[in-house]
Amino acid sequence: MFDFEPIGTRAKEASRELAQAETRKKDRALEIIAEELLKNKRAIIDRNRVDVKAAEEKGIKSSLVDRLYLNEKRIEGIAEGVQKVITLQDPVGLVDSGETRPNGLRVIKVRVPLGVVGIIYESRPNVTVDAAVLCLKSGNAAILRGGSDAVNTNVFLAEIMRKALEDSGLPRNGIQLLTDTSREAANAMMKAHGFINVLIPRGGAGLIRSCVENSTVPVIETGVGNCHIYVDSSASIPMALDIVDNAKTQRPGVCNACETVLIHRDIAEDFLPKLKKRLDAHNVELRGCEITRMILGNCVVPATEEDWATEYLDYILAVKVVDNIYDALEHIRTYSTRHSECIVTESFTAAQEFQRQVDAAAVYVNASTRFTDGFELGLGAEIGISTAKLHARGPMGLRELTTIKYLITGNGQIRQ
Amino acid sequence: MFDFEPIGTRAKEASRELAQAETRKKDRALEIIAEELLKNKRAIIDRNRVDVKAAEEKGIKSSLVDRLYLNEKRIEGIAEGVQKVITLQDPVGLVDSGETRPNGLRVIKVRVPLGVVGIIYESRPNVTVDAAVLCLKSGNAAILRGGSDAVNTNVFLAEIMRKALEDSGLPRNGIQLLTDTSREAANAMMKAHGFINVLIPRGGAGLIRSCVENSTVPVIETGVGNCHIYVDSSASIPMALDIVDNAKTQRPGVCNACETVLIHRDIAEDFLPKLKKRLDAHNVELRGCEITRMILGNCVVPATEEDWATEYLDYILAVKVVDNIYDALEHIRTYSTRHSECIVTESFTAAQEFQRQVDAAAVYVNASTRFTDGFELGLGAEIGISTAKLHARGPMGLRELTTIKYLITGNGQIRQ
Repeated sequence: MFDFEPIGTRAKEASRELAQAETRKKDRALEIIAEELLKNKRAIIDRNRVDVKAAEEKGIKSSLVDRLYLNEKRIEGIAEGVQKVITLQDPVGLVDSGETRPNGLRVIKVRVPLGVVGIIYESRPNVTVDAAVLCLKSGNAAILRGGSDAVNTNVFLAEIMRKALEDSGLPRNGIQLLTDTSREAANAMMKAHGFINVLIPRGGAGLIRSCVENSTVPVIETGVGNCHIYVDSSASIPMALDIVDNAKTQRPGVCNACETVLIHRDIAEDFLPKLKKRLDAHNVELRGCEITRMILGNCVVPATEEDWATEYLDYILAVKVVDNIYDALEHIRTYSTRHSECIVTESFTAAQEFQRQVDAAAVYVNASTRFTDGFELGLGAEIGISTAKLHARGPMGLRELTTIKYLITGNGQIRQ
Repeated sequence: MFDFEPIGTRAKEASRELAQAETRKKDRALEIIAEELLKNKRAIIDRNRVDVKAAEEKGIKSSLVDRLYLNEKRIEGIAEGVQKVITLQDPVGLVDSGETRPNGLRVIKVRVPLGVVGIIYESRPNVTVDAAVLCLKSGNAAILRGGSDAVNTNVFLAEIMRKALEDSGLPRNGIQLLTDTSREAANAMMKAHGFINVLIPRGGAGLIRSCVENSTVPVIETGVGNCHIYVDSSASIPMALDIVDNAKTQRPGVCNACETVLIHRDIAEDFLPKLKKRLDAHNVELRGCEITRMILGNCVVPATEEDWATEYLDYILAVKVVDNIYDALEHIRTYSTRHSECIVTESFTAAQEFQRQVDAAAVYVNASTRFTDGFELGLGAEIGISTAKLHARGPMGLRELTTIKYLITGNGQIRQ
C-alpha cells in the first residue's frame, strides 16, 4: 500500500511557510530556477533523450512523442515562462473587496493561497516547471505526479527547483515530485483529502475521468477539448478557411485545436472543396457525414457516432453539414466538452445567438479557437484550462490558485 | 436501483430555459412564492405538525426538533427572505471584466448560471425555500433532497414553488424535490456527474463527509463549524464575556456558534469565574482542561481529546487555558474546521498575527463569530457557508451560484 501521508505532511508544512513568504523571496527562487534551467540545458536534454528513446521504442505515436521531446529552444521557452511569472503580480494579499457594515464591523476579503495543489499530468515535461512555478508564485506547495514516460526528465527538473527554493530560504518541500508513477500512487494522491486542497489533472479524457471518479480531493477538470467551428451561411469564406485551417493544423495536439467543423448546407457545396484543398496541404484526414461525402466523394472517410465525440489531437477533422444554426447548436450541446466553440458568421443575430446559447468556457465569433490560452487571454500564464464550472472556467492563472478569507474586525460587536 | 436519470434530465432541460430567463420573470415567480407562503401558512403548519410530532415520538433531541419546527413567525420569516431575494441584483449577465487584446480580439468575462444545483440537507424545512429561490434567481435548476424528518413540510413547500414557476411561464422542473429520502437516492444524486453541476450539502459533519467521499459531482463542503474564541491576556474582560456569551448562547444550534474558548493563562483566574457565572444563566455545561478545573473546580467536566474536536451545537462549551497566542494558534490549526475563528485582544500585534496565521473562512478580531452569515456580511442571502477553499469560501450568495464564460469576438484572428 502506497503511503501518501509523509509526502502530504511535508507539503502541508511547506505550504504554511510559503503562504507567508514575501513576493521578493518567491521571485528570487524563480530567478534561480530560470538561471539553472539555462545553465543545465545540456544535462536536461541528456535526461530527456533517455525518455524519448524509451517512448519511441515503445512505439508511441509521433504527436505524443513530440509532447515529451525537449530541445534547447523548448528549454529556453520554459525558462522564459519562468521569467514571465516573475513579472506577474503576486495575487496573495490582494484585497478583493471590503466594506464597513452598518454595525461598524470592518469586513475585508483578502486573497490567500489554496494551500497544497496536486497536479497529475501525462507526458509533457514542461508542465513540471510551468505548474510548479505558478504554485510557488501564488504561495502554494505543489505535489507533481508526471507520466512515467518523462520520469527521468521530471526528476532532474524537480531537483533544480527544490534546490532553488532552498537557496532562496524557502522550504524544499514546497515542490515535490512523486517518483512512483504507479497507478496506486496516483490513486493515493486522489484520496488525500485533508492533505491536498485541489487536484488539477492535465492530460487526456481517461486521466480526467479517473480523477473525477476516484478523488475525494476537489478536482478541477481541465483540457479535454472537443472543439467545434460552425461555419454559418453568411460566413466570409476566406475567413472561415483561415480560421478552420489555423484551429486544426497550427498545433493539432493541444486541447484548443478544432476537432469538428459544422457547415451550413447553403454554403457546403462552395465551401467544402475549398476546405479540402486547404487541409490537403497538411495531410488532414477528413471524416464526414453523408452530405459531405456526396460533395467531396469517397476520399472522405464516413464519420461514425464515435467521431463526433472524439478529441483526435491529430491531423484528423470531422465534418458535418447542418441545416441551420439550431442544428449546429444541438450538435454542439450533445458532443461539446464545453471548452471552446466558434461561429464564423457575418450575421449579427447569429453571432449573438451563438454566444448566448453555447455553454462553454470560451465562445468565439470569427476567431480561431486556438486563443483559449492563459497568455493569449492576458492572464500571463496558465496552470491549465478548466472545463469545469466551479472555481475557475477557461484558462487558470495565478488568481485561480488562490482563495479568499474574510478578515472581520470589530470593537465588541455581538449579534442581536 | 434508484434511477436518477429522469430527474437529472428534467433538471438539465429546465436549467437551459432558466439560464436564459429574464430577471423580471424570475422575480415574478419569487413574488408568487412569497405570496403563496403567506396565504398557505395554516396548511404549512398543519403539514409541519405531522413532521414535528413524528420527530418527538422518535425522541430526537430538542435543539434538533427546534430546527424542524415552523410557526407563523418562521413562515413569515421565510417569505420575507424570498422578498429580500427579489431586491437583490440578478448576477446573470454581469460582466466581471473585459478588454481588447493587442491583436484586436475583444474578450469579455460574463457571469452565467452554474446549471443544475443539488442540495442535500437535513431537518430544517426553511432550506427548501431558501435554497430553491436563490437557485431560481441565479438562473439555476435546483434538485432538493431534504431529510426524511421534514418530508411532509418539504413536499408542500416544493409544490408551492413549482406552481409559482409554472404560473410565471417558467419550467416547473426548475425546482424538484427528491421525495425518496433513502440513502440509495442520496447516493444516486452524488454520482450524478453530467446532470448536477455542484452539490451543496447542508447539515452535520457526517452528511458532509459522506458527500465528499461518495460524490463524483463537485461538492462544496459547508457549515461544519468547530469555532474557537481565543481570549488574549490583553483582552477587555467585559468585551470577552459579551462575545463568548453571544457566540455560545445566542443560537447554539448553528454552525457559527462558538464551541471552544481558549484563554491566556495570565487572565484565566480572573476571567474563568466570571465566564462561568455568565454562562450559568443559560445552563451551559463546561468541559475544561486541567487548569480550568483547578480554577473552577469539579463542577467542570474534564475535557477529552474528543471534546476539542466536537461541534456540540448545544449548550456545551469546551474550555482550555493556553500559554500564549502561539499555543492558541496551534490548537486552532489542529482542531479547527476552518469556518470562523476569533481573537479578543487589545494588542495590535496579536490581532495582526491572528488574522494572518489563522486559515479559516472568517477570522475575527473583537466580534462574535455569529456574524459569519450571508445577511450579516452583506451578501443579502446565503445558500450555505463554505468551509472549502474552491469556488466559494464563507457565505455563498447569488454570485457564488454562477460561473463565467469568455465571450471572444474577432474579425478573423488566427494564432501565429
